[in-house]
Amino acid sequence: MARFFMAGTNILGGMAILKGRDAEHVHVLRLRPGEDVIICDGQGTDYKCRLVKAEKEQVEAQVLEIVKCPAEPSVKVSVLCGLPKGDRTDYIIQKSVEAGAEEILFFQSARCVAKPDKPEKKLERWQRIAEEAAKQSGRGIIPQVSWAGDLAGALDAAVQKDLALFMYETGEREALNRVLEENRNIATAAIITGPEGGFEPFEADLARIAGLHVCSMGDRILRCETAPVVALTALMYATGNLS
Amino acid sequence: MARFFMAGTNILGGMAILKGRDAEHVHVLRLRPGEDVIICDGQGTDYKCRLVKAEKEQVEAQVLEIVKCPAEPSVKVSVLCGLPKGDRTDYIIQKSVEAGAEEILFFQSARCVAKPDKPEKKLERWQRIAEEAAKQSGRGIIPQVSWAGDLAGALDAAVQKDLALFMYETGEREALNRVLEENRNIATAAIITGPEGGFEPFEADLARIAGLHVCSMGDRILRCETAPVVALTALMYATGNLS
Repeated sequence: MARFFMAGTNILGGMAILKGRDAEHVHVLRLRPGEDVIICDGQGTDYKCRLVKAEKEQVEAQVLEIVKCPAEPSVKVSVLCGLPKGDRTDYIIQKSVEAGAEEILFFQSARCVAKPDKPEKKLERWQRIAEEAAKQSGRGIIPQVSWAGDLAGALDAAVQKDLALFMYETGEREALNRVLEENRNIATAAIITGPEGGFEPFEADLARIAGLHVCSMGDRILRCETAPVVALTALMYATGNLS
Repeated sequence: MARFFMAGTNILGGMAILKGRDAEHVHVLRLRPGEDVIICDGQGTDYKCRLVKAEKEQVEAQVLEIVKCPAEPSVKVSVLCGLPKGDRTDYIIQKSVEAGAEEILFFQSARCVAKPDKPEKKLERWQRIAEEAAKQSGRGIIPQVSWAGDLAGALDAAVQKDLALFMYETGEREALNRVLEENRNIATAAIITGPEGGFEPFEADLARIAGLHVCSMGDRILRCETAPVVALTALMYATGNLS
């Protein structure tokens, strides 16, 4: 069923009004009065609605039922990635949203090849990718995409969570499954992954000193855009959010 | 370390000879005599070698050590996907190889939008994608990419395995984590996922009748190119192959 996000405050008296891009989207989908859509407040609540008016400028829908969005996982996971090159960011955002991330943050680290002066400028586009992915995957929120600055900023953000994981390819590491099995009842988590070239040893040391679990995901080397979704999927699986 | 695949029979008397594309690749990477590479026989054995000659046409390397490739998982997993549109096939191949698949097969099902007359023609290109991904991720084999024909062919292939999973989005399903936890000691497995529009109910019925586990991966709707890597990652995690 087609899915739209709008502020819950715009749903009044049992009626929801869609305008602008959303109204156009209804038009593109050729949805007609009598057909049903889901309007989500972006806070985890779904309003199942029936269209009563579907014009290009404005769409009106009657609320039939209000339910908790079933797609939201029990763990709020922040995915923090060393900024990769090109459209790998888009891929990370899209797949992390599908896999259940609460938010996605990028940061600059020692081996980043991509060094945009103003990554903040890209945030608007990144956020649109997150919104599209949230609609498609039936999420109850639109995960926020942010810029975390440098690795220190990412570590600071990560250690606020119940469980903070730093994925690293070599050296002394904990096995991911062991760490996850010992931390099944968490409410929040952070996953940090590196850019194309991975992390420098001193960066892994910083993570360890900051109190993160420096983790291995086995002997297969994952691309920088694959590692976040694999780690996130493992976490979702381990916490019972993949069934 | 740079990685190359060649038949083990070409490694004779403690020397390995690389020619053609592989020799060119050594040249492109600017590797010089004295530097080390890994030459894998594609059967799970790695030959750690030192270059003794590195010319554009021919590269010679001395075998230093022979080890079992550590990247091969304990479970051989066949990933079978309803043929998607465009370059989603490439994505599925690349990510499935990274995530540890033994082979990738595509098939035609009821809701396939892509209906190439001769998918066999694409196999050569698909196989190259698998080889590149195998090199990058440090695999000990080059996973085979094949065409399984129709859903009946895919089901036939799947039921040969110790565990056969059919990922389905609606209706009566088993929870993936439950099925995986009850089948930790498997040697082979198959994962079937659908094309863009998913499967028809009758297709899920066919899978159930054939004896596959019709499984849910939760309430987030995964894109057709995301579902295989998420299911494969869950299986790798559950069988201890992600640590």
